[in-house]
Amino acid sequence: MNDLTLSPIAIIHTPYKEKFSVPRQPNLVEDGVGIVELLPPYNSPEAVRGLEQFSHLWLIFQFDQIQQGKWQPTVRPPRLGGNQRVGVFASRATHRPNPLGLSKVELRQVECINGNIFLHLGAVDLVDGTPIFDIKPYIAYADSEPNAQSSFAQEKLPVKLTVEFTEQAKSAVKKREEKRPHLSRFIRQVLEQDPRPAYQQGKPSDRIYGMSLYEFNVKWRIKAGTVNCVEVIEIEKDK
Amino acid sequence: MNDLTLSPIAIIHTPYKEKFSVPRQPNLVEDGVGIVELLPPYNSPEAVRGLEQFSHLWLIFQFDQIQQGKWQPTVRPPRLGGNQRVGVFASRATHRPNPLGLSKVELRQVECINGNIFLHLGAVDLVDGTPIFDIKPYIAYADSEPNAQSSFAQEKLPVKLTVEFTEQAKSAVKKREEKRPHLSRFIRQVLEQDPRPAYQQGKPSDRIYGMSLYEFNVKWRIKAGTVNCVEVIEIEKDK
Repeated sequence: MNDLTLSPIAIIHTPYKEKFSVPRQPNLVEDGVGIVELLPPYNSPEAVRGLEQFSHLWLIFQFDQIQQGKWQPTVRPPRLGGNQRVGVFASRATHRPNPLGLSKVELRQVECINGNIFLHLGAVDLVDGTPIFDIKPYIAYADSEPNAQSSFAQEKLPVKLTVEFTEQAKSAVKKREEKRPHLSRFIRQVLEQDPRPAYQQGKPSDRIYGMSLYEFNVKWRIKAGTVNCVEVIEIEKDK
Repeated sequence: MNDLTLSPIAIIHTPYKEKFSVPRQPNLVEDGVGIVELLPPYNSPEAVRGLEQFSHLWLIFQFDQIQQGKWQPTVRPPRLGGNQRVGVFASRATHRPNPLGLSKVELRQVECINGNIFLHLGAVDLVDGTPIFDIKPYIAYADSEPNAQSSFAQEKLPVKLTVEFTEQAKSAVKKREEKRPHLSRFIRQVLEQDPRPAYQQGKPSDRIYGMSLYEFNVKWRIKAGTVNCVEVIEIEKDK
């Protein structure tokens, strides 16, 4: 059978600058919204005509932050603590034979401006700059199966961690909220998911973790089920 | 941005030998079931370990019966009578910049036999022999959105046509039902969807239409909302 070559039709802009910080499913971090920008020659208002009449979309995209050709028949889903193996086709893992991702997103607004097309989305689970290969409308009667049996992923991730900010982190975030509304709430939502690798979760450690969200470097530490956000620093100076 | 080349990981076996006869969404024709066969080197029991604990799957596949590079910014969905144009990204049309299809299917059984892996599915909307690029488990809490607004595709296709068989067709089908259980019911389900091109629907005509289902050529005629199945012939002799 023949291979098929795909070209990106769009790129997505999100707060997540690295794999590490991306929530494991969309909708876990409400303020982590995304914007799809159509690439030429697909950036025509005609190509999205009528799209605003759909509340949700499918994005088919590339897991472009993983090394290609390195798939394994089994993977260790974070939902199973990172220790138990299941088949790659029984998981939504990023390391798969064809590195395609699939994500249901809320469509909030279609913006056609100065020859550009922007799709303003709700919460997303994609790394900033991810290439998009297809956008399809969500068709409720065909795509929705609320009673489907979903094995180990039957329910939303359970307990959230408590998040606290140091005084220093709190005031740093406050200063930046004019430019980034809800920054504090957003950082809280990301941290309460416990974005550590699954195999480190539940283990006590004094280690300070860091990650990039928007233009900020966020540092935190976890102790006894509480996340302590210790530092928020702007990576690049405003131009 | 870079292109991405995909290799098929599986092929699907379905009753639909041509685009023409494929239902417009899965689940419209209950007896039109499919079987996914994993291709080497992906045909290992490990790659599907735990898959049987999911009731539904996503298939990402290639619309391989269309000419490539022929996409248009707008398409005419059959649901709108084939006359009104919407953006290609606001439709599930087959002619799209990257010819990827997405289909939710029921998983009935995982069969590992003689070094082959077969996934026995419920109803499908894929042409026989379609290349599959990815299989993902359906995750109800992330993928299901029963109240999504879906524009012109809000509800299942409405009225079904009445289907009648001529005596000749009826006895031809009966003879083949040992080999193909429910063949009569299946042909009825396909025909009551009115598989004519949308622009011909509702137009009176004495024309006899034909299509291939499994190894049969099925001929029918439509008059006053009733489909008359006039002939069912086996295309290839049994070997």
